[in-house]
Amino acid sequence: MSQTKNKMKRIETCLSPELLHLYNLQGKNVLIVDIFRATTSMISALANGVISIRPFRSLEECEAMKHEGFIIAGERDGKKVESFDLGNSPLSYLNHTFSNRKIAMTTTNGTLAIDAVKAIANKVLIGAFINLNATIEYLKNQEEDLVILCAGWKGKFNLEDSLYAGAIAYFLSKDYTTDCDGTLAMKSLYQFNQNNIKAFLANASHTKRLQNQNIEADIDFCLSYDIFDVIGLVKDGEIIAQQS
Amino acid sequence: MSQTKNKMKRIETCLSPELLHLYNLQGKNVLIVDIFRATTSMISALANGVISIRPFRSLEECEAMKHEGFIIAGERDGKKVESFDLGNSPLSYLNHTFSNRKIAMTTTNGTLAIDAVKAIANKVLIGAFINLNATIEYLKNQEEDLVILCAGWKGKFNLEDSLYAGAIAYFLSKDYTTDCDGTLAMKSLYQFNQNNIKAFLANASHTKRLQNQNIEADIDFCLSYDIFDVIGLVKDGEIIAQQS
Repeated sequence: MSQTKNKMKRIETCLSPELLHLYNLQGKNVLIVDIFRATTSMISALANGVISIRPFRSLEECEAMKHEGFIIAGERDGKKVESFDLGNSPLSYLNHTFSNRKIAMTTTNGTLAIDAVKAIANKVLIGAFINLNATIEYLKNQEEDLVILCAGWKGKFNLEDSLYAGAIAYFLSKDYTTDCDGTLAMKSLYQFNQNNIKAFLANASHTKRLQNQNIEADIDFCLSYDIFDVIGLVKDGEIIAQQS
Repeated sequence: MSQTKNKMKRIETCLSPELLHLYNLQGKNVLIVDIFRATTSMISALANGVISIRPFRSLEECEAMKHEGFIIAGERDGKKVESFDLGNSPLSYLNHTFSNRKIAMTTTNGTLAIDAVKAIANKVLIGAFINLNATIEYLKNQEEDLVILCAGWKGKFNLEDSLYAGAIAYFLSKDYTTDCDGTLAMKSLYQFNQNNIKAFLANASHTKRLQNQNIEADIDFCLSYDIFDVIGLVKDGEIIAQQS
């Protein structure tokens, strides 16, 4: 075994994109999570045959991709942008409707986070509960340290993304060590609430925001474990699927 | 009962001073916490007869107060500033050594947080485990919404301050409601770890940092419940004691 392989890998958790400047991402893998609903939608799309997803910061840039043959998906404040093909519901990507198409996507929190890290990190991964185990298996085989970046909600900490970070740290505790307080906190929070995730998250601010939009089916789907076995990876600025 | 009294008060938790701009503090009470060790030291000092503590951002401003008869207390990166009378050990404030004196204090995280909020908030309180119950009793009788501001560590989330926020939310859950994810997360984390705080915090980054300085007695003291029954309040830019 090489020295590198013997060295215990480390996990850190950045609980909000507003804290990202405090983390050194150089040479590390970054796992981005926006459970409700950007990264869940991305994994759903990739698992159902979408070729790739290109994230955009602005609605205008994203909309312009329509003329290049892209499906355009846009969400602001949890709602579909009217003129766009798709919003941010993971359910709309199921059943291979968009197989062999490319998607251009812009969301309130998730795509911003991807844009911020892709130039610096070693690998950028896209995380969701619906492919949790696949991502864990992939990360077991990586040699780099890991930073989990929670997309949060408009800069604030959010419960579902940080609980996902806790799940990753919990299931990887034999493979990665941590001295990051955010990771330790969320690992413990996940450990105590793991059999009860949906009930625990029923109080979360974002769950309530989504419930007001009558998208209980989306919430339910976003909190389901291991529906798909693909992982999401950023390559050349686009998110693609890879078998773990 | 007036309408105001019937309205359920709300708690929010700001997990790092770097996120403070996302919170509206106007007309709210703000409870500032820096368990290791600024706010624990402040409460210790007040409970032992210190007249008031004036917080300073810079070492230079703080040091200048020596000529005005103040005891000067300074800490950077967890260590006492050499030329100062005192560092940041709560134990150094016990036994009435500084009774009837005024202290000028500057610390890595805690005093910065106080300075940032005192001009905007309704009341600014200083929190620690050593006066947890006194602070809870005081807050029960307040009518304003509450924002708990965790001092963190150089902008990052830290475990001991956020766990204290969780304790406050947990013990005030009959008096205050919350839809803040940070508060919900920390309340649950506290609930599950409340009988085990010292062991749980043994892994925290700041505990390890302090253990390297051989100040286990400080850590132990900072994590003790209800040693004192005074609360700490900011009045005219100085922290003073008040019976709850």
